[in-house]
Amino acid sequence: MTSAPILYDLITKDGAALSPWCWHAKMALAHKGIAAEVKPLDFTQKDQVIAAGGKSFPLMVEADGTVSDDSKIITDRLEEICPTPTLFPGGAASHAAYDFMHRYVQTILFPTVVKIILKDIPDVLDGADRDYFIESRTTRFGKSLDEVCAQRDAHRETLSTQLDPFRKALAKGGFISGDTPAMADYLLFGVMQWARVCSPYALISADDALTPWMESLLDLHGGLGRATPAAS
Amino acid sequence: MTSAPILYDLITKDGAALSPWCWHAKMALAHKGIAAEVKPLDFTQKDQVIAAGGKSFPLMVEADGTVSDDSKIITDRLEEICPTPTLFPGGAASHAAYDFMHRYVQTILFPTVVKIILKDIPDVLDGADRDYFIESRTTRFGKSLDEVCAQRDAHRETLSTQLDPFRKALAKGGFISGDTPAMADYLLFGVMQWARVCSPYALISADDALTPWMESLLDLHGGLGRATPAAS
Repeated sequence: MTSAPILYDLITKDGAALSPWCWHAKMALAHKGIAAEVKPLDFTQKDQVIAAGGKSFPLMVEADGTVSDDSKIITDRLEEICPTPTLFPGGAASHAAYDFMHRYVQTILFPTVVKIILKDIPDVLDGADRDYFIESRTTRFGKSLDEVCAQRDAHRETLSTQLDPFRKALAKGGFISGDTPAMADYLLFGVMQWARVCSPYALISADDALTPWMESLLDLHGGLGRATPAAS
Repeated sequence: MTSAPILYDLITKDGAALSPWCWHAKMALAHKGIAAEVKPLDFTQKDQVIAAGGKSFPLMVEADGTVSDDSKIITDRLEEICPTPTLFPGGAASHAAYDFMHRYVQTILFPTVVKIILKDIPDVLDGADRDYFIESRTTRFGKSLDEVCAQRDAHRETLSTQLDPFRKALAKGGFISGDTPAMADYLLFGVMQWARVCSPYALISADDALTPWMESLLDLHGGLGRATPAAS
């Protein structure tokens, strides 16, 4: 890659990346040692993503105009243009397993986390961006953000069960990707970092087997994740 | 391995292996080209498994007395004593992903399939074995087998959603393990083959993306799976 790609990133009022999928892209870029030119935008500026050829955040546009408009497409594109170090140690088997886990996160884990943290997200937005978020999500869910999160403690229990396959994946080595962190780790990290940035509500307890793993992910790539403060 | 291990296998009245976990062990052995000496037993003969040093089916006992008393332990043991061809193409990353999928199957997929096929299982058992199964499962679930399966059509819909991560894993290649079938394929195959052997109820439709995959798994290792007829 001769010149830096542009990454259209969704951010909070404090400039922190806001979305699991944006964190996937950021961690994948850092894994490859590619310094993207980040274009920080808020929800109300999504038209700029669309104008650049995408559908939503995150969007990557390379110097030659190649557009990757989804975190999973970005990941595969990065693997193609910069194979080393791989995001999928283990090759095709590892990529197929990643596809499995990605779908699990998308359809099972993420909706549960939404029901835990959604009502806190307006606090990290402001002005028109905050208004847009509250209105669009109230319409999407057909109820207030408070109502979506009314059973958040129960959903935290559900989440703990849903995280169990990840705990099992950690059992033999330090990382979900095996001996070293890679895309399967960034997959779960993206969701947990999103929650960390948007909500003071603790998704997991301090003695959870995933806590030391999360701490090590926050330190990775020069502390890329930890550089963004947790919501308070 | 100098002489054949013994595999304690749980069987139907017609001698067909009956349990997802037994199928995992059978497919793993076939993958390695190891011909085990199969000891076919029914539910009421579980005391023989316990006498041999196990807790439940399947149990593998090697010529030197080494006992592996769980399908996952059997799988890891086979990988250790006979590394080629590997059950985990992709190494540590692939094994960690398998641990993830195994937990998913155990805690999410399997309980759904139980609610679809349980009431059909007595039809493939007879005599004391059938009586034991009905009584023990009625006690375990606190209701009749018919009641457990009262919403089987709805559970089939749930199952279809729960199978989606597997469909995604297939999207890029022919198999869940990547380019060639291996343990991650046997994992899902075990559950589907168990249902196929025990119940005439079709878990998935003919046009499901998993149907051609299932057909190819049935043909694998000299048609090991297909040699056991489907319940009718």
